[in-house]
This record gives sequence, C-alpha cells and structure tokens, in this order.
Amino acid sequence: MAFLKVVPLEKAREILNSFGMEPKTEEVPLEDALGRVLAEDVVSPIDVPPFDRATFDGYAVRAEDTFMASEAEPVRLRVIGEVHAGDFPDFALDAGTCAYISTGAPLPQGADAVIQFEDVEREGDEVVIFKPAYPGLDVVKRGVDVPKGKLVLEKGTRLGFKETALLSAVGLSKVKVYRKPRVAVISTGSEIVLPGEELKPGEIYDINGRAVSDAIRELGGEACFLGVARDDEKRVAELILKGISECDMVLLSGGASGGMHDLTSSVIERLGQLYIHGIAIQPGKPTIIGQIDGKPVIGLPGKPTSCLTNFTLLVAPLLRKLLGRETEVRKIRKKLAHKVFSVKGRRQFLPVKIDGDRAVPILKGSDVVTSFVDANGFIEVPENVEILEAGEEVEVTLFG
Amino acid sequence: MAFLKVVPLEKAREILNSFGMEPKTEEVPLEDALGRVLAEDVVSPIDVPPFDRATFDGYAVRAEDTFMASEAEPVRLRVIGEVHAGDFPDFALDAGTCAYISTGAPLPQGADAVIQFEDVEREGDEVVIFKPAYPGLDVVKRGVDVPKGKLVLEKGTRLGFKETALLSAVGLSKVKVYRKPRVAVISTGSEIVLPGEELKPGEIYDINGRAVSDAIRELGGEACFLGVARDDEKRVAELILKGISECDMVLLSGGASGGMHDLTSSVIERLGQLYIHGIAIQPGKPTIIGQIDGKPVIGLPGKPTSCLTNFTLLVAPLLRKLLGRETEVRKIRKKLAHKVFSVKGRRQFLPVKIDGDRAVPILKGSDVVTSFVDANGFIEVPENVEILEAGEEVEVTLFG
Repeated sequence: MAFLKVVPLEKAREILNSFGMEPKTEEVPLEDALGRVLAEDVVSPIDVPPFDRATFDGYAVRAEDTFMASEAEPVRLRVIGEVHAGDFPDFALDAGTCAYISTGAPLPQGADAVIQFEDVEREGDEVVIFKPAYPGLDVVKRGVDVPKGKLVLEKGTRLGFKETALLSAVGLSKVKVYRKPRVAVISTGSEIVLPGEELKPGEIYDINGRAVSDAIRELGGEACFLGVARDDEKRVAELILKGISECDMVLLSGGASGGMHDLTSSVIERLGQLYIHGIAIQPGKPTIIGQIDGKPVIGLPGKPTSCLTNFTLLVAPLLRKLLGRETEVRKIRKKLAHKVFSVKGRRQFLPVKIDGDRAVPILKGSDVVTSFVDANGFIEVPENVEILEAGEEVEVTLFG
Repeated sequence: MAFLKVVPLEKAREILNSFGMEPKTEEVPLEDALGRVLAEDVVSPIDVPPFDRATFDGYAVRAEDTFMASEAEPVRLRVIGEVHAGDFPDFALDAGTCAYISTGAPLPQGADAVIQFEDVEREGDEVVIFKPAYPGLDVVKRGVDVPKGKLVLEKGTRLGFKETALLSAVGLSKVKVYRKPRVAVISTGSEIVLPGEELKPGEIYDINGRAVSDAIRELGGEACFLGVARDDEKRVAELILKGISECDMVLLSGGASGGMHDLTSSVIERLGQLYIHGIAIQPGKPTIIGQIDGKPVIGLPGKPTSCLTNFTLLVAPLLRKLLGRETEVRKIRKKLAHKVFSVKGRRQFLPVKIDGDRAVPILKGSDVVTSFVDANGFIEVPENVEILEAGEEVEVTLFG
C-alpha cells in the first residue's frame, strides 16, 4: 500500500485536535495528590492561623497594662489562668491580669501580646514585668498567614510537597486535579517478543512498547500496555478494540516492515476510520491516525528514534493538554556542536544530545537503538535548509 | 527540660551516619522500574540486533555478485526464497542467487547486503541489478547496536523511559534497583488535627506530616504517615513502636510547644536511647536524635520552615544515600537579592526563593506557614557572619 494519505505534520496535529479531547477532572484524597496538577483555583476556607497564636512560651498580657513598666517601676499582673497548645481559653483578661501561655496556644480574649518567660519574674500568682510590650509582640494574628478566602494555589499548579503541605494547612483533605488520560499501548511486528520470553532466531525484543508506556507515565498519564500483536490481523483487531473499550486512546508502534503498517491501517479502516497513513517528515513517515468509536488510534513508526520523535511531536502535546500541563516548556535553545547536512525538500528531525550549551547531533541513524538512548531530543531541519553550520543556534525539543 | 545535649550540626550528622544504614537492593519487574535507581551495572546478555538485519524491504544479495553491475551491463540474480520479519531463513545464498527480504528480517546465510526494491527490476524469478552493492549496504550487522557483554547502564543510573526501553531491548524483564527506604512519619502536638477533621477552637491543621511524607516520596522513598500523636505519652510511644516495627526509621515533627519536645524525648529515652535533643543552628534547635531497636528516631522542629530545613539538612542526605542518589546536586550558586543581617554567634539557615540568577531571602519568619511555601531552599549564614551584602554569591541548598 502506497502512502496515499501523506500529509504535513500540521495537518496531522489538526486531525488530532479535531477529536476535541478536553481535560477531565477528578477529586483525589490529599495523600494521593503529590505530582498531580490542580484543576481548580484553591481558596482557603479558613483563616490560618485560625486564632491569635502565641509564638513563644510566656505570659499573655494586655499590652496597655505594661506600657508604664520599667526596671525601676515594674508592673505586676495577676496570673488568672493557663492556656496550653490545643486548649481554648474559656476566660478573658481584665485590666491587671495575665495568663500563662504555651507556644501555639490561642491568646485569651483581651490579650494582645505575649511576654517570654525569660523577660519576667514569677512571684506566687503574680508576674513582674520590667519593660513594656507592644500589641502584637510574639503573636501571630488570626489570618495573618493565610486569610480565609485567599487564593492559595492556582489552577494548573503541579502539586509538590510544599503545595500539598499548604493544602493540608488550610484543612483540605480532597483536591480536584486533572484525571490521568489512559492510553493503550500495543507493540506490533512479527519479529517482536517481550523481554523475559525466549528469543527465537529472527526475533528481537520489544523496545517501543516499553519506551512509549514509560514516556506516558513520566508525563503523568496512565499507560496500559496490552502486549505484542504479531502479524495476525485478528489479534491486532482484538487488542485495538480492547484498548478502545478501556482507554481514552490507542497507540500502536509499528513493526519494521511495511506489511505491518498496511495491516494496521486496514484494521483501523475496517473498525473505524483511517484519516492519514503517512506524515511528510523524516523520520516518521509511516505514522497512522484514525478513529474507532470516536477515540484516536495512532500508529507510530517502528524504529525507536522515529517512534519517540513522533510520540513527542504528536502524542505528548495532546497528553500534556489533558493533564493541564500545556504551558510547560519543552524546547530549549542550544548551539549546534557540528555541521549537519540535510536533504533539500525533506523536513527532517535530527536527534541531538545536550552537552552543556551545545546540541550534539547523533548521527547513528534511526536503525540503531542506541541513537535514541544517547539523545535528549531533536532539532528540526526545514525543507528548504540543506546545511546547518556548527555554532548555529538551534531549538531542541526534548523527548517526551 | 533544658537542651542538655545541644550539639553542632556536624555531630548530629555523624550520629546519623553511625547507624551504618546501607542501601539495600531488590529485584523489580521492568514494568515497575521507571524512576528507580539501578543497583548494579547492566551488561547486555545478547547481541542487538541478534542477527544481520535488513533495514529496508528489498533483495538480500551477496555483494560480490553485484560488483560488475552497471546500467549498460546489469547483473541478473535468481530469487531462491523470501524472508519476512520474524522468520528465520532455512536456506543460504549461493553465487548468483538472492532472496526477497522485508525490513527487520534476518539475512540468509551468504548474504551481506540488501538492495532496495526501487533499485532493481523483477523479471519472473530473477531480479535485474544495475549498480554494485557494497558489503553491509542497508544491513545492521549483528551486535552493532549493542554487542553482547557491553555495559549498557551503570549502577546508580536513574531509570527514565529511555533506560527502561534499553533494558527491554536487551531482553531483561527484571532489574536490580535500590529498595525504597520506608520512613514512618508522625505528627505530634496537642493542637494538631488532620485535614478533613473538624477544627475545634485552639486547633490547627497538620502541615509537617504532609510536607515530610511527600518530600520523602519525591525523593523516591516510601512514607508511612501514622497520624497525629497529641500530647498523650502512651499514644506517642504506641505510634513510635509501630513505626519502628514497620519501617527503617521514624520521623516525628514536633508540636509548637516545648512540652511536646520533652515528652517525645522522654519516650525515646524510655524505649531506646536519646543521643541529642538540640542542634546549635537556627532555625531548628529543637531537633531530637535517638534510637530504638537500632533504628533512628528523629524529631524535627514543629515550625514548618524549620522542619523542612532540618529534614533537608539531616534526613534527605541519608535517604538519598539509601536510594543510590548520593551524587545528586542539590546546591546551586546564586546572587543574594538584598542585604541580610544575622546574629553573631548563631549559625543561621535562611529560607530563600530562587528568582532567575538571584536568591531572594524570605523574611516572613518561621512562624509563618507561607515562608516555606514561597522558598525553594535556604542559605547558610555562619556564626561569625553578621551581614551578607546584596549581590554577594551564596550557595542555595534546595529543599528536599
């Protein structure tokens, strides 16, 4: 089968966008929220701290009672109670009184300052105060840290440990995050076996199934690796349909040969609709996009570097959109380490390794597995460019 | 209780090192290996590819048969068989013969080159060849990609999707990685409740339990959050012992008050041994280190920024060692955004936010929750330094 429907990369992206897949959300317990992305703005439902709070062990006082205190003429206040962290005082301070207070405890009504133990003398039920306290001394006022109603985290924030701790601080035990898109991954090819299985003559171990599944997971998605479909049309159809029923989309990585590409195309055509089966880029021409039951089915090239490049160009942006991570920067500018030649009239994506400020082209060719292992991403060489000079600034798209 | 055993930070680290905790390893299936760290060098048990492999659809030939081919005097070879991807040819090429071959298929014995379809003409059971092929044309030789016995990944490598794909390529279905250290986390403090619970007057929501648990997870460890122990000695002892029996170490984050610190210290003293209950740094003086059943029990300060700073200074390096991630760079050099003052004679750790090239000191104070949320890490101000000038180069230790 010839590449009857070979389209530009932009057209392929347009087709994928036309599925209209939108981010979905789910509520997760805070203890499972690490690494997820917030799907809503979070405002604090409470004041933090929720009460005027002592920052040291000492005595809670009415500051005005101490204004006249001095070494020569100390002020004496009567201790009328104690407040420990976790308690809530059921008494108020009147003029001339104070209360023992521990760090973290709420100030009794009327109190507006805390004087540390080392600054007073205790005599029976009185404390002797030698210098004035100002209102607010050693107190964190209610709501000073996070006032009720304040926006604490914005929609789209990736939740690290500081963010989950902040959500805990404002008392939220659940949080709305973007649902992980579920992606079925199928390796195709008559020569492919899974690691751990016996390698018979003529067979090679699967690479793309693992690479794509784990790339999806690193992005934050959920990968369902369904196994290897050898060149058995029935098995290919079976696995694709399983993927369609369980997941949001299906990814296949092609076998090496054109035959597998044809077989996959015709299965998609029979079960749904085939939109394209080729993209005018190198590597990665044999890329398939179709739909079954309204869900995208994407066939990626069989050569590992091509597979990963096209995953990065087509699938990763879609997953990032669904994960609320669209704005993440995946492109960096580097200087090309040495001259590269391209073929005029071909839009080429060249794997490069990042080495400090430089992008070093990997020239092993896409047939070699280790070319993608060494590379961090790729640069684009447009159709009308034949030579990129050493030292030229290039834009590197990171894999994944 | 006074800080009878207040020691320098280095002494605290020395005590933690003296536990002699060493990285442990475990074997995990390759599909669970993403993100883990290799605990052994991996050498390839096979040649990749395991046979001489065609990189295009075409005809496998003996190159020497084609050396005389030209447009004027083409060479004719007899097609004696077909090899498809996944097959293994049971025939060999003799002089004057060739075989149909598909991409990814093994070359029959005798063949050493592949000529693509578009470069030949097929006439019955013969192909007509118009130009010479050199040995190795469009063939990936056995072992060229990864020869058997080659070191493919070094001990200490963090396994990303490219690395798991490489392990798959060489056929490994299991891999030896560092075992995740299990850390019990307990929040202590009479005023602490968990998010989702009702906040009664005088209570605040837990921050440190979540912060520390998720920081451990981000590092790659396993956190077992055991809940909140209010100021009930029996409950504190119960949770510590649960942690000791189930985990490799126990972390407690102190309540705000000195009373909780004392209670935790005395429980550790009763159940095991208390080494120190204070470190001569600010913040984070109230830090406890002890042992029960030979396992470390570490009490971190109650104030969130202090808790996270001391976690970073004491616990994270130990976890990274156990996870085989000791060499990771967690310090970066930045320019101080504005002048800061410190107290002479105090070794201070000051939270800073990283803003491009600059480290911006967070001056909110450790009582304020949001001071750790805004900060990315901290700088150290040694005892003998009182002033750091704006623009001065500082070393920022990243949290976690």
